[in-house]
Amino acid sequence: MTVSQAKEYYLQTREKENAFGLCWFLSSLDTETGVMPPRAIDFRSRQLSALSDMQYDMTTSDTYREAVATLAAAADTLDPALAHEIVCKQEAIENLRRVPKEEYLAFTDLQSRAYPAYVEAKQKSDFSLFLPYLDKIFRYCRKYAGWVGRDGREGYDVYLHMFEPGYTAADYDRFFALIKEKIVPLVQKVAKTQKPLPEFAKKTYPVEGQKRFAAYLQKVMCFDPERTAMLESEHPFTANNGSHDVRITNHYYEDNLFSFIFSAIHEMGHGLYELQVAPELEGTGCGGGASLALHESQSRLMENMIGRSPAFWETHFPALQAVFPEQLAGVTAAEFTACINRAECSLIRTEADELTYPLHVLIRYEIEKEVMAGQLEAADIPAAWNAKYKAYLGVDVPSDREGCLQDMHWAGGDVGYFPTYALGSAYAAQIYHAMSRDLDIDAALREGSVKKVADWLCEHLHKYGASKYPKELILLATGEPFDPHYYVDYLLRKYGGEAHA
Amino acid sequence: MTVSQAKEYYLQTREKENAFGLCWFLSSLDTETGVMPPRAIDFRSRQLSALSDMQYDMTTSDTYREAVATLAAAADTLDPALAHEIVCKQEAIENLRRVPKEEYLAFTDLQSRAYPAYVEAKQKSDFSLFLPYLDKIFRYCRKYAGWVGRDGREGYDVYLHMFEPGYTAADYDRFFALIKEKIVPLVQKVAKTQKPLPEFAKKTYPVEGQKRFAAYLQKVMCFDPERTAMLESEHPFTANNGSHDVRITNHYYEDNLFSFIFSAIHEMGHGLYELQVAPELEGTGCGGGASLALHESQSRLMENMIGRSPAFWETHFPALQAVFPEQLAGVTAAEFTACINRAECSLIRTEADELTYPLHVLIRYEIEKEVMAGQLEAADIPAAWNAKYKAYLGVDVPSDREGCLQDMHWAGGDVGYFPTYALGSAYAAQIYHAMSRDLDIDAALREGSVKKVADWLCEHLHKYGASKYPKELILLATGEPFDPHYYVDYLLRKYGGEAHA
Repeated sequence: MTVSQAKEYYLQTREKENAFGLCWFLSSLDTETGVMPPRAIDFRSRQLSALSDMQYDMTTSDTYREAVATLAAAADTLDPALAHEIVCKQEAIENLRRVPKEEYLAFTDLQSRAYPAYVEAKQKSDFSLFLPYLDKIFRYCRKYAGWVGRDGREGYDVYLHMFEPGYTAADYDRFFALIKEKIVPLVQKVAKTQKPLPEFAKKTYPVEGQKRFAAYLQKVMCFDPERTAMLESEHPFTANNGSHDVRITNHYYEDNLFSFIFSAIHEMGHGLYELQVAPELEGTGCGGGASLALHESQSRLMENMIGRSPAFWETHFPALQAVFPEQLAGVTAAEFTACINRAECSLIRTEADELTYPLHVLIRYEIEKEVMAGQLEAADIPAAWNAKYKAYLGVDVPSDREGCLQDMHWAGGDVGYFPTYALGSAYAAQIYHAMSRDLDIDAALREGSVKKVADWLCEHLHKYGASKYPKELILLATGEPFDPHYYVDYLLRKYGGEAHA
Repeated sequence: MTVSQAKEYYLQTREKENAFGLCWFLSSLDTETGVMPPRAIDFRSRQLSALSDMQYDMTTSDTYREAVATLAAAADTLDPALAHEIVCKQEAIENLRRVPKEEYLAFTDLQSRAYPAYVEAKQKSDFSLFLPYLDKIFRYCRKYAGWVGRDGREGYDVYLHMFEPGYTAADYDRFFALIKEKIVPLVQKVAKTQKPLPEFAKKTYPVEGQKRFAAYLQKVMCFDPERTAMLESEHPFTANNGSHDVRITNHYYEDNLFSFIFSAIHEMGHGLYELQVAPELEGTGCGGGASLALHESQSRLMENMIGRSPAFWETHFPALQAVFPEQLAGVTAAEFTACINRAECSLIRTEADELTYPLHVLIRYEIEKEVMAGQLEAADIPAAWNAKYKAYLGVDVPSDREGCLQDMHWAGGDVGYFPTYALGSAYAAQIYHAMSRDLDIDAALREGSVKKVADWLCEHLHKYGASKYPKELILLATGEPFDPHYYVDYLLRKYGGEAHA
């Protein structure tokens, strides 16, 4: 196979992969936004199995492997983005070829069945409904790590590298050790001095008004309506199909004004990353965000550093007050900002404040590490979960719904995903620090939208898409390698009045 | 290839076709319910092209043709449903192999681009925005008929047979000649004696109430919520993925109480057909309704013969009145029933009454026949359309939005589809006549739901799915071959006080 033949074959196959990608995108949106009727699941699973089957055959075919190997050998003659894509693709092909096809297909089927079982278990707060699925999922994950592990990477590291290339448990251990050393004591101190929730936070905020404010936020966040959609789901998420179709979901609670605001800003942070990838990368292996933690850095930066800043609410609180004049009568922007920056030990990760957030992730990280080491089984999860919440956050978990059933990640087999959330927050602090050298961020926000912030992020990070590894991108965006002290300093300064951890 | 190898290959390929089917189902739902962001279309089209490409290769492969030919030769050893499926599949493969691949792919791309152009043209009532697409579509249709036509079937007949197997322009000419002879004069007579619209029909009916009544209708129509979804779109339709995932869409207009009621009942009529196909046929080539006209017979039977009957509204008008107590104060079920059975010459096919409906179809049939004969070009459509509306319905078409841009069918290349609507109404009258021999339909409706009607339809028609040709199914369901006089008699009796055309 010549390089030119290899390239033609590769590009054709990539178009087919994009077509399969469309089906997964739409099917998961359909399921997770609750549009699919409940009894549709059996036939749907059968269809997704056939889809996986085709994709497996395509990705593991000898011709495809040969094409990719031919291009990898000629990497120096290729466009740098394509060369990077080929290296990643070669690793992915090798991974997939190591998974026995029947196991791969059975796992796809399991995933599509596990999700509705998880939803039902969560609704009924009955872990036993999910346990048989979770047990199979964890067993598969251990087997998967055994098949795919190589070059000294094994067990949990296989998954950590899959979700954040280049990171191992040793890296995360160092990161979480710093969190444990500096943040756990701070949380315990802050929790004791916590002021009570102000009255306006306990009021009822009709969903219709929340939706109007979500539309307002869409403008503030420069979330182009020609290329985006705002939907609803149980658990908010962002999904995209290329860089011209980026959808976020929200969940509106009448008794919680803050939930939708910060989940919308969070998801739009993810969405902006996808929208701002250089258009010529769309449909290539370098289209889209570079890694989960980098993605999370963008959502967390928008949610916490931008979306909870005094400058942001000095500018936008009047609009919120106009939507809810009765509920927010007499409340000042400063009172509102103080309220949204409260830190409190709580049960739900996605509702957690910035300070306690990494402890929620730490708990999941420690559990996953034990699961992957075979020291913990699915059946042990509720007890382990509840014990760690007591130890690190000092809270009693009253039900599995508010405990180990709160997140859907494990239902999809996504072990190793959670740690990227905390790493992303740490990236965000470092990126924010770099941005503040170039830009008076508060002044930019007072102009009414996040445009200048979004432009800076586009220029320094977003436009590169996934054309480089995360560690290279952090260096490009901030001028330094990743350094978790920016994050710990930021939290200490904001919540403890200290700095320089 | 042995029969057993052929069968294995065939069944595996069918699973793959089902997987592709899922992608088309979800993508078209996403587009037509307006969820997809506008600028997503380019990448989406590229993905759908790649999908078509894969399907084309799969369907036209020599191995697949050989497998199907092997099974066709051994048809008498197969289960009868599979044997029927193989005959149909062999014809479909032969059709596709006659279409040059580059033309096929270019047309798929054209379809996905034509739809948004059509929507924009309709919104702006500007035919010129759609004209370049429609012109290409019509040219393709003529070429397609040339490639695929064989065994004496050519031009328009190729499309008529594709949408209603076994029917030719000669059949439809006879059918529409009867319509022209009996119904056109009746329409002109009825139009002159039309009573004015009652006051309650001109009131405003808030969408929220309409949605509540739609949920009530879902129960009445036995439209199982575990296997269905009710969505919204510009133009109502039914789409299904197997027999456990049947979705209908609605469009709610505050100034029109009737629109959503009868489109919901209509679409649920389609939906019930899909829901009641024997479950073992799901995922086979015999799952789903047998033909477009049979499908339309089920929606029209429910919409007109059931949903506009006095017995139906004696039972359900109180519920409608409870939703809109103010607007419907003092209105009786009989007044309501009289109003929903008014006949009036109008512009919009989907809003047309039962009596004038076939004339809307007649107009489209005559236009399509001329288009396929090369006697009419896309640019001529508005003038031809308007002239025929004047001639048959006596109405002036004020804009293309209310004229030739009202239906989306041609945007998808679906020439030959419209005539099945009128044929379906005619089937419905014959099926209703057969049902009334077995069942006191009015008494059944007074029990509160359409269950007994649905059960009869399941037993006599739905359960067979697409395992037989339409003409066989009509014979099975009614004991007679298709006879359009049942339809004409029904209309004459209902609207003209006459019978026995």
